[in-house]
Parts: sequence; C-alpha cells; structure tokens
Amino acid sequence: MNADARFTDAALRSWKQNADRVEQFFASVSDAELEKEIAPGRNRLVYLLGHLAAVSDTMMSLLGLGERAHPELDTPFLKSPDRAAQSPHSIPNLREVAREIDARLWTALNGLTPAQWLERHTSVSAEDFAKEPHRNRFSVLLSRTAHMQFHYGQMVLTKARGE
Amino acid sequence: MNADARFTDAALRSWKQNADRVEQFFASVSDAELEKEIAPGRNRLVYLLGHLAAVSDTMMSLLGLGERAHPELDTPFLKSPDRAAQSPHSIPNLREVAREIDARLWTALNGLTPAQWLERHTSVSAEDFAKEPHRNRFSVLLSRTAHMQFHYGQMVLTKARGE
Repeated sequence: MNADARFTDAALRSWKQNADRVEQFFASVSDAELEKEIAPGRNRLVYLLGHLAAVSDTMMSLLGLGERAHPELDTPFLKSPDRAAQSPHSIPNLREVAREIDARLWTALNGLTPAQWLERHTSVSAEDFAKEPHRNRFSVLLSRTAHMQFHYGQMVLTKARGE
Repeated sequence: MNADARFTDAALRSWKQNADRVEQFFASVSDAELEKEIAPGRNRLVYLLGHLAAVSDTMMSLLGLGERAHPELDTPFLKSPDRAAQSPHSIPNLREVAREIDARLWTALNGLTPAQWLERHTSVSAEDFAKEPHRNRFSVLLSRTAHMQFHYGQMVLTKARGE
C-alpha cells in the first residue's frame, strides 16, 4: 500500500469503527428505549438515529457518489428539531433505512481512490476550491466522523454506568 | 502541497478545529460552572477539562514527540473516575496547564512530516507494526480527534439550548 492509500485507509478505518459503534448502540436499544432523551428536554435517541442516517445519506451527494436515497429524512431529522415534525417511517422502518444508508455509503466510500479523496466536494465551486484546496472529500469524511462521535458521546449517557 | 501533505493537513485542521471548540467552551464557563455534571451523576465539566488535558499530554509520548509534561494528571483524570481522586491543581492552575499542553502539542504535531505520520506510534512494537501498519501516528491523531468530539458532545448539554 503506498503512502496516499495509507492515509485514506486510516480515515476509512476510523469512520467504520465509529459507525459500527453507533450501529451496535442502536441495536442494543429497544424501540421503547429509543424514546429516551439524552438529557432532560433534549433530543431523543430516535431523533439521533434519524439524524445520523440523514447526514450519512447527504454524504452520498456531497461526495459526488450518487443520488441520495432518502431525502424524506431531511425535514424531520435535519431541518427540524426533535418532536417538531412527523417521521415518515415507523421505528422498525427507520432502523432498516439507517442500516441501508450505512451499508450503501460504506461501499461507495471504499470505491474512491486517494486522488479522488483530494478532489473537491460538491458544495464547493471550482473557483473556491482553487483558493481553498482543503475543502476536499477527505475533509468531509473527517468532519462527519467527528460529528458521529459528538452524538455518540451523548447517546451513551442514556445507558446506566458500566453497561 | 503534494498529496501526502494534503492528507496530513486535513487531519491537522480537523484536530485544531475541534481543539479550539473545546478551548472556547471551557473559556465560556466560570469556575463555579465547571462543577456542573454533563448528566445527573455523571462526569463534571472540571473532570473533562482535566481528562482531555491528560489525554493530550499522553499524545506527546505516544507519538514520540517528547516527554510528557504533566503525568500528575493521570491519577485524577485518566485512572480514576470523577470525584475519586484529588486533583493536584486548583481550577485556575488546571485551566493554565490545559492551555499549555494544547499549545505544546499543537506545535509538536505541526513538526511531523507526512512520512513520519505513517510511522508506528510508541505503544506498538516494530514486530507488530510490520503486520499491522495501520497502527501509525496518523491513526492516533484521528482517534484522539474523535475522542475530543465524544466529550464535546457531552459538554454542550450543560448549556441552555441555543446558547
């Protein structure tokens, strides 16, 4: 593996490790427990399930990997705070949609070459990218990995200590 | 900037962005507010301040960048849960120590070349590294960035919504 590929390999491993933790967390929580709030008056777990799925789905188009599969998640889970909009999915459906999005994204992420990771993402223009070459696909992967951990740190607070 | 340097540049930017957020958060919190818990019965903010400083300090030795400056943080903030051990620092001192550690680490991180980022970290042996070349300095940087975000997601729960 050459040097470039070792950098992208490290970032993909980091993404996957974090995505797996989130998936295992939600698998360990019952449908009823998804109603738990991460703190009094704050987001419920079900909102974070939908929110993380919506963000992963947007990564498909942001990274130029294909059309989004689930834009219906945006209104309830990205544009609205928790409880403000009705989810179009039942909880079992939402769980399935989240798994589908994750699996599809993971396959697509693995199809990029190191050179493609350094190309611009779709929300930056060619002109701006010429001035700010750090606005590349790779930086999106890093920031979305951090975003997952941000919410993962919150989710675990709903579990009893040591669980 | 060649391709290798663009990967390390992205990861360093991600580290700095997250470290700055954490620093600004703590700067916005009074000494009295550092006693707040992230959730009932969970870590206080002051513990997370010491914990993140201790982890950043260990990165110096883990990345082979120099001796640790503050091993006295380990017992209260890494090896013990919150409230189990006495901090050796007053709160103003702890704030200053955290800033020093961050600044020193940031300078050291910027001194590494892309090739050095792909070298092993000090807790993996040469034999193991030959088999598992992904256990490099770069992967430590990514995992510690994610770790910061994990706790940052918790800290922000102590602030009123929208603050």
